Amino acid sequence: MSHDLLDKFFLPRFENDILGELGDQARLNIDGARLAFSTDSFVVDPIFFPGGNIGDLAVNGTVNDLAVGGAVPLYLSAGFIIEEGFPMEDLHRILLSMEQTMHRAGVMVVTGDTKVVNKGSADKIFINTTGIGRLPEEVDLSPAHIRPGDKVLLSGSIGDHGIAILSGREGFALENPVQTDSAPLHGLVQTLLEGAPGQIRVMRDPTRGGVATSLNEFAQAANKAIRIDGKTLPVQPAVESACEILGLDPLYVANEGKLLAIVAPESADAVLALMRGHEYGKEAAIIGEVLDEETARVSLRTGLGAETIIDMLPGEQLPRIC
Amino acid sequence: MSHDLLDKFFLPRFENDILGELGDQARLNIDGARLAFSTDSFVVDPIFFPGGNIGDLAVNGTVNDLAVGGAVPLYLSAGFIIEEGFPMEDLHRILLSMEQTMHRAGVMVVTGDTKVVNKGSADKIFINTTGIGRLPEEVDLSPAHIRPGDKVLLSGSIGDHGIAILSGREGFALENPVQTDSAPLHGLVQTLLEGAPGQIRVMRDPTRGGVATSLNEFAQAANKAIRIDGKTLPVQPAVESACEILGLDPLYVANEGKLLAIVAPESADAVLALMRGHEYGKEAAIIGEVLDEETARVSLRTGLGAETIIDMLPGEQLPRIC
Repeated sequence: MSHDLLDKFFLPRFENDILGELGDQARLNIDGARLAFSTDSFVVDPIFFPGGNIGDLAVNGTVNDLAVGGAVPLYLSAGFIIEEGFPMEDLHRILLSMEQTMHRAGVMVVTGDTKVVNKGSADKIFINTTGIGRLPEEVDLSPAHIRPGDKVLLSGSIGDHGIAILSGREGFALENPVQTDSAPLHGLVQTLLEGAPGQIRVMRDPTRGGVATSLNEFAQAANKAIRIDGKTLPVQPAVESACEILGLDPLYVANEGKLLAIVAPESADAVLALMRGHEYGKEAAIIGEVLDEETARVSLRTGLGAETIIDMLPGEQLPRIC
Repeated sequence: MSHDLLDKFFLPRFENDILGELGDQARLNIDGARLAFSTDSFVVDPIFFPGGNIGDLAVNGTVNDLAVGGAVPLYLSAGFIIEEGFPMEDLHRILLSMEQTMHRAGVMVVTGDTKVVNKGSADKIFINTTGIGRLPEEVDLSPAHIRPGDKVLLSGSIGDHGIAILSGREGFALENPVQTDSAPLHGLVQTLLEGAPGQIRVMRDPTRGGVATSLNEFAQAANKAIRIDGKTLPVQPAVESACEILGLDPLYVANEGKLLAIVAPESADAVLALMRGHEYGKEAAIIGEVLDEETARVSLRTGLGAETIIDMLPGEQLPRIC
């Protein structure tokens, strides 16, 4: 119900030019400094899951929201809501993991807040992180720059995070455990921006709602049709089989360490090579292209040559995935 | 348990020079721009209370954390955690109130996030706001500037917010209802900084833990003794009698629209006059002074000429007050 909520209740109250852009980050100019500003509250359930926990997720999530806009993430705030009786050893483990992830992402938590609520008033622990990044002068990423013929690049396999969370939830175990792909993407992003200046139209980290939702957001913002090719989509076999059992489409399942980029056609191969040379882009692929059609639509070419429309889902497919 | 949690678990993980200052805000310098950055999660119970609700509190709280450091509040992020089934009319009322308060405080919400959690996983609604402000070049407020002889000024009556929240909680009704004092303090702060440049040592909005806690934080940071005079403390009669019934000391009860300032002695009367001339400082008073003693201690002179030590409370006196 998040898109509905936004449209009906939040946007009319907070209307302003900056929020109106509706990216994952706001762009600010204060005394000549170009800044990116982004917030996320993490309510993931379970808080510990294969490959990570709510702590590293809270750091990576906001770092990535800043990075995909082209910003260099610098500072984070951290707000904790903790249920009374929450085990101190779990808190310690989460904070240690935040510390390690901060170092890896090159950011610092510079201001914080902790609220303890009575038992039953929150589910264990919620973490809000809000980040500030520096937007380099030359960076100008926007879905408005998308042109027919542009290529759609993805840095690796889809759906890992969502399936890792589901397999971490009680009563659901996979034969081949899937780990979250949670990772800070600032380094990969900087590699692409420096290696192919002016060639990236727009980027996004396809989290909630997965690659399908991010592509739909691009298509709507640019009023362009985007077609992806099912054969080129990187999906781990364990994710594929888990999705089959659960009746999920991996295109809609959340990622937390993947980069989706729309790239000028003449530079697509070069950007692909840059991605593959980075530790978080080894399995990168060109998964589709922008069509010469002024229609906000995303379609998938399946193995049989048929095409299906990939719509925005009306509600949240998987709650509390981040 | 907040102070304990901080010392034992959070500080060792997030150690850095900026967080180390431990004010209500971090001070950042990005590309020459001097910024203030502050976060707060609001979990107040009940969410609607006499004179306000969680929405205006969430805006004023972060605006004030920025303002008391001398910053001009500019931009806010807002992160909502909403319990499934939360009435949409309540959400609407909260958002309307945030909108009005934003306009009054001269700030904009420029980025946001909404998470819906299943029923029973959160208590109705929690709101995180994180703010960015501009720190004017000439502003340099710090408890390190506190000197013997300095005066302690308070902008009005104490304990109103805490008592309003308690009276809003189920099963507790006051004869004379007390309203929250929730208000944005940026205007009052700017009036003082412009009217008495260089005369304000440090300011704080005494929220959780009340005036007693803020004064103890000043005394510890400056390693100075501060003495306040009980006769000069502005307390509403209804707050005083509610505190008596509940066994609370109004000095420890939260405020959400009061300013505590340490001021150079020669300018104390001028600053007091500036406070009284402002809509949020009509009942301002000089409530104490800094002694010529290198001891971190706060004492209260009672009506009878006796003196009591006003300690930092070991735990939270009133949970979920903001």
